[in-house]
Amino acid sequence: MTESTAGDPAPLALDPSSATPLYRQVRALLEDQLARGVYGPSRPMPSTRYLAQALGVSRNTVALAYQELTGAGLVESRPRSGLYPVNLAPTSTTPRTTRRDRTIQMDWQPRLERHQAGLHQLPVTKAPAFPEWQDYPYPFISAQPEMKSFPARSWQRAMVAALHNPHLTYSVRDAGDSDDPLLLEALCNEILPSRGVHATTDEVLMTSGAQQGLSLIADVLLGPTSTVVVENPGYVDAWQICSRIGASVVPVPTDQWGAVIEDAPGFDAIYLTPSHHHPTNVTLSLPRRRLLMDQLADRDAFVIEDDYDSEFRFRGQPTPSLKAMDTSGRVLYIGSFSKFLAAGLRLGFVVGHPEVIAALRAERHNRSKHLAGHLQRALGIFITSGDYHKVLRGQRRRLRANWDTLTAAVNRYLPLPDEGGSYPPGGVSLWYTAPAEIDCKRWALRAREHGVLVADGSRYYFPGTWRNHNLRLGYSSLRTEQIEPGIRALAAALP
Amino acid sequence: MTESTAGDPAPLALDPSSATPLYRQVRALLEDQLARGVYGPSRPMPSTRYLAQALGVSRNTVALAYQELTGAGLVESRPRSGLYPVNLAPTSTTPRTTRRDRTIQMDWQPRLERHQAGLHQLPVTKAPAFPEWQDYPYPFISAQPEMKSFPARSWQRAMVAALHNPHLTYSVRDAGDSDDPLLLEALCNEILPSRGVHATTDEVLMTSGAQQGLSLIADVLLGPTSTVVVENPGYVDAWQICSRIGASVVPVPTDQWGAVIEDAPGFDAIYLTPSHHHPTNVTLSLPRRRLLMDQLADRDAFVIEDDYDSEFRFRGQPTPSLKAMDTSGRVLYIGSFSKFLAAGLRLGFVVGHPEVIAALRAERHNRSKHLAGHLQRALGIFITSGDYHKVLRGQRRRLRANWDTLTAAVNRYLPLPDEGGSYPPGGVSLWYTAPAEIDCKRWALRAREHGVLVADGSRYYFPGTWRNHNLRLGYSSLRTEQIEPGIRALAAALP
Repeated sequence: MTESTAGDPAPLALDPSSATPLYRQVRALLEDQLARGVYGPSRPMPSTRYLAQALGVSRNTVALAYQELTGAGLVESRPRSGLYPVNLAPTSTTPRTTRRDRTIQMDWQPRLERHQAGLHQLPVTKAPAFPEWQDYPYPFISAQPEMKSFPARSWQRAMVAALHNPHLTYSVRDAGDSDDPLLLEALCNEILPSRGVHATTDEVLMTSGAQQGLSLIADVLLGPTSTVVVENPGYVDAWQICSRIGASVVPVPTDQWGAVIEDAPGFDAIYLTPSHHHPTNVTLSLPRRRLLMDQLADRDAFVIEDDYDSEFRFRGQPTPSLKAMDTSGRVLYIGSFSKFLAAGLRLGFVVGHPEVIAALRAERHNRSKHLAGHLQRALGIFITSGDYHKVLRGQRRRLRANWDTLTAAVNRYLPLPDEGGSYPPGGVSLWYTAPAEIDCKRWALRAREHGVLVADGSRYYFPGTWRNHNLRLGYSSLRTEQIEPGIRALAAALP
Repeated sequence: MTESTAGDPAPLALDPSSATPLYRQVRALLEDQLARGVYGPSRPMPSTRYLAQALGVSRNTVALAYQELTGAGLVESRPRSGLYPVNLAPTSTTPRTTRRDRTIQMDWQPRLERHQAGLHQLPVTKAPAFPEWQDYPYPFISAQPEMKSFPARSWQRAMVAALHNPHLTYSVRDAGDSDDPLLLEALCNEILPSRGVHATTDEVLMTSGAQQGLSLIADVLLGPTSTVVVENPGYVDAWQICSRIGASVVPVPTDQWGAVIEDAPGFDAIYLTPSHHHPTNVTLSLPRRRLLMDQLADRDAFVIEDDYDSEFRFRGQPTPSLKAMDTSGRVLYIGSFSKFLAAGLRLGFVVGHPEVIAALRAERHNRSKHLAGHLQRALGIFITSGDYHKVLRGQRRRLRANWDTLTAAVNRYLPLPDEGGSYPPGGVSLWYTAPAEIDCKRWALRAREHGVLVADGSRYYFPGTWRNHNLRLGYSSLRTEQIEPGIRALAAALP
């Protein structure tokens, strides 16, 4: 590539004493010039060599700045020609003779593509959603509540109470960027301690499900230069959320002790589901947890811990959260009421350092102000009234019964691989491994004709690492008595 | 390693005919005992030799089970003592001398600053929020509902109905990125037509208040190279939302006919509150609307129309929305139930081209999936039951009475500028202009001592264009009978 030396030297005053890295300062200068139209189709960007000399910085510094501008879609390289500003307004400059016909429809596509182009979207399959799940007698999925066991009565009681004094004000007020104080107290006092998390209310932010927590963290703390390690197989939405802001998303494999931490490359953040790995349901082992926590300080990295279904452990002690081991403030803890109550209510939260929470709060304000007051107040009442713990015990009993029935049925009716079937006791789904010769993708499709809705495991693998040996058998959306006949129907659908 | 032989032999019934390997069965038994607290700091795990004998299995089998338990972090060996259950409480980690001190707190500031540095934030004052508004006898604000006139009973009826068949499913399901079909139909059939907007359900997206609609549009359709024209004075949050993604935000002045469109420079998008300009409450004139619509195609630009309180027009015909004039698909229409119901419920929507709506929907999924199903379903029921229109009529009557009382009281008790006081009949607030010599900022502060909460107008001006001649008298948060005494108290606070 030949680079032009015909640049505009411009003001170009860098401040070496500034806390802002030099390459960022260079980038800002160039962005300013780009915005002022200094460069154009017939005027390329100054060469790296020229600019390094003019600014008195290394060529690496300039190269880094250009790399970011290219990544941001502001400049592009043309073969044997150099770097040019991207022409972002293709049609606006055309001359006009007469007034345009106002009924000519706007073409939104270029604008939408421009947006998409800036994103380094992973070519992942979307996480499986089964909108028609209720049409199936045996929905072995985990995202949906089982209607009969949704605590409609106690939830209704809380929603109604939230519309009376002294609660009404909190249910309907414009809360600015704040959260419901009753709910924050209830979370800190009655929910988090059982996860080993001891937080004050300024360390908690209410979010619209775990999803909002994750996307706020990605947008506020990560960027195009960040590397985020994720579990493989894993939570596809998390990959999307990180990759859409341009971060590099790097998978590490998982085994029966959870994510293989020792294989993780350098990273800025790691997204984990340590209590019950999504989707295999295994628990991250203590030695790996220790290894991870030791690495964090060395790497100046942080953990995003998604504890989405930690309430559900049926045998043994619940494994403590990573946050409970966090002595250096490097764990951001994401919780959710989606599995316990219902995903459709969109209730979640983030626990972290007060400074981080304040920044996430400011960004949440720009996005959607606060979470609906009525839902927050009702959840606060639901917890403090004791209904939460009562319902939780009932749900645990139900899910434990489902797990027992399911593991027995799987071992009895489904073909098992040589190493046998053994399943971690907890969570809301079972990760079934089939003998190598079975095509699970085909099996899951055939199962539908037998009334069984089930996600084949391939959907959870990182692009390029696809494997076809698993089914994810969610058992939270069924009644216990549906399970054995459901597994028999699944067996009957074997390809 | 010497292992203790003092174990609890327990029931320990293995099933040699099971498909589960023996070592897995041993592991399950031990896990169960661990969970029940059989072993502890002073009680080690049984030795391999003892357990092999007691269970009638080989020592290798037991050793394999222990190996897994150790790997899972459930037991650990202590030198010259044996295997012990791991104390899972956070303090269990013994201090280490060589390893890095894990209690050194992470410094989040550089990361947060790195993020902030990427943003070209406008130095705007935050929009006024008055969390303590209920402590004042006369809260002349507009963001908050008047508790007595909030339709608690009919809203409660809708929320309860949404928890029964056939609605419950829609209230609690994980809807993926979709919206409640009942609510979309109700919006398209019963709400939008009165605004002159005729849309199909694929042209509508439900949002967490108008704020989410605006921020989705900014994030998906605008970027660092975009220019967004906004009204001055105007809605401060909109400026923040556009400037935080790096867009250039350019103010145009407003007069008694709304935003001075003819002064607008080139732009990619223009954000307007044409029905009732925020905060002055004037309506964008028809000639300016025509001029604007003509400019759009020439500029290949689009309008973000925030119709946040269009329900409230007390005299004459409601001005049609800009969207109703939109023959080229260049208007994105944002609506809200914040003023009519309550801001705290966070219910809003966007109407636009199906391709745009699909892109906003995908981004909303990454941010927060969907809006809480229970709220959506309740709002759908609220509208289709006829309660919406009944409540709307009542609210209009109340606000009309408030407006009549307020304009009379202002003209009677407050000093007026030479041009007199004349106020557009509609909206939820009155933009009062004081004689030039009065310091309104000081007046608003002094008013608090007289029990009056009111926003001084300077808060709504673009950075660098600050003016101090106005008060924004919101009248939706008061009962009618509070208004005259409130204005008298305000007059008494004149500096």
